[in-house]
Amino acid sequence: MTPATGAPLGLGVLASGRGSNLQAILDATAVPGFPARVAVVVSDRERAQALERARARGVPAVWLNPKDFGDRPAYDAALTGALEAHGVGLVCLAGFMRILGPAFVRAWAGRILNVHPALLPAFPGLAAQRQALEHGVKVAGATVHFVDEGVDTGPIVLQASVPVHPDDTEESLSARILVEEHRLYPEAIRLFAERRLTIVGRRVLVR
Amino acid sequence: MTPATGAPLGLGVLASGRGSNLQAILDATAVPGFPARVAVVVSDRERAQALERARARGVPAVWLNPKDFGDRPAYDAALTGALEAHGVGLVCLAGFMRILGPAFVRAWAGRILNVHPALLPAFPGLAAQRQALEHGVKVAGATVHFVDEGVDTGPIVLQASVPVHPDDTEESLSARILVEEHRLYPEAIRLFAERRLTIVGRRVLVR
Repeated sequence: MTPATGAPLGLGVLASGRGSNLQAILDATAVPGFPARVAVVVSDRERAQALERARARGVPAVWLNPKDFGDRPAYDAALTGALEAHGVGLVCLAGFMRILGPAFVRAWAGRILNVHPALLPAFPGLAAQRQALEHGVKVAGATVHFVDEGVDTGPIVLQASVPVHPDDTEESLSARILVEEHRLYPEAIRLFAERRLTIVGRRVLVR
Repeated sequence: MTPATGAPLGLGVLASGRGSNLQAILDATAVPGFPARVAVVVSDRERAQALERARARGVPAVWLNPKDFGDRPAYDAALTGALEAHGVGLVCLAGFMRILGPAFVRAWAGRILNVHPALLPAFPGLAAQRQALEHGVKVAGATVHFVDEGVDTGPIVLQASVPVHPDDTEESLSARILVEEHRLYPEAIRLFAERRLTIVGRRVLVR
């Protein structure tokens, strides 16, 4: 699953939007000695800022237009093709807004990470920060987890909490959580690349 | 709902077991100037250590034996009678293992607090710490919330997080969470007694 010692792990980052988590990953992996590098960035949106961020670092940036594919299996096969062509050993979802099909998830089982702006299992799915505010929680947070076939249900690698302030808006809470996402995601990638993660049932043991 | 300024708020603590949260409340309320005092402790179990803790502080300790009452409404009516007889303005559940009926909850709406050993809405119900460990979360915590007719679903007053350690057992995690319970519960009582809590929908505004 991971390359031999010495060769950094190849990351395939899937992103649809702004790409702030991609940027955190690009920054972390640029530090000498980091055990992974971004091998390719793939987006379903031609104008995703994530693709620009990749190009700015000389990282291959691939736009896979869903309209060019007849169905989800065909799209997911092209995705796997692009990832394999770039020697990817770990897929990192970073604001990728397409649901990945079960065949893709199975093919990359144990090799797909996602970051979610909530303390899962609380508030899975879209607009987690708004869900948290509407529920009235006083503690929110971020989760990096392995991806399984459910929505934000996979084994949890790392979590961090942040306080919810009385005057928080969705924007202010999201910004506070994002700081933790940017910290946790590279750390989870490092742990994976250093082979320090073991999935046991739905628990992730960190060595 | 709360007594006039100067008279401390009367608390009715309901407990079935060891009473460690009761002890935290007794200790906090014993500090001069604290705006509440424990007016009565009620238990459904004759041998609950909570009752001994109350007596040791000279606080009225009432055993209400469920076997003496024909059904839940009758029991809950006796409970309300005992609380009113002692001038209770806020009911604090502290390990009370009986489900309170909807009539009781409605009668005391906005005047019942509970503490739960999880970051609600995650892991409601029994054995929350075990649920958290089995789910593989990396952050756990404690919640003080108003009680509504659901199980651990009421508006959240305060929460605090604790880390989950790789070698945690149910006991070690429970002990770490309990430290936060003992800190949060008196603080929530203070906020209520100082009339600084407002329930708006399912959010609690803290002034």
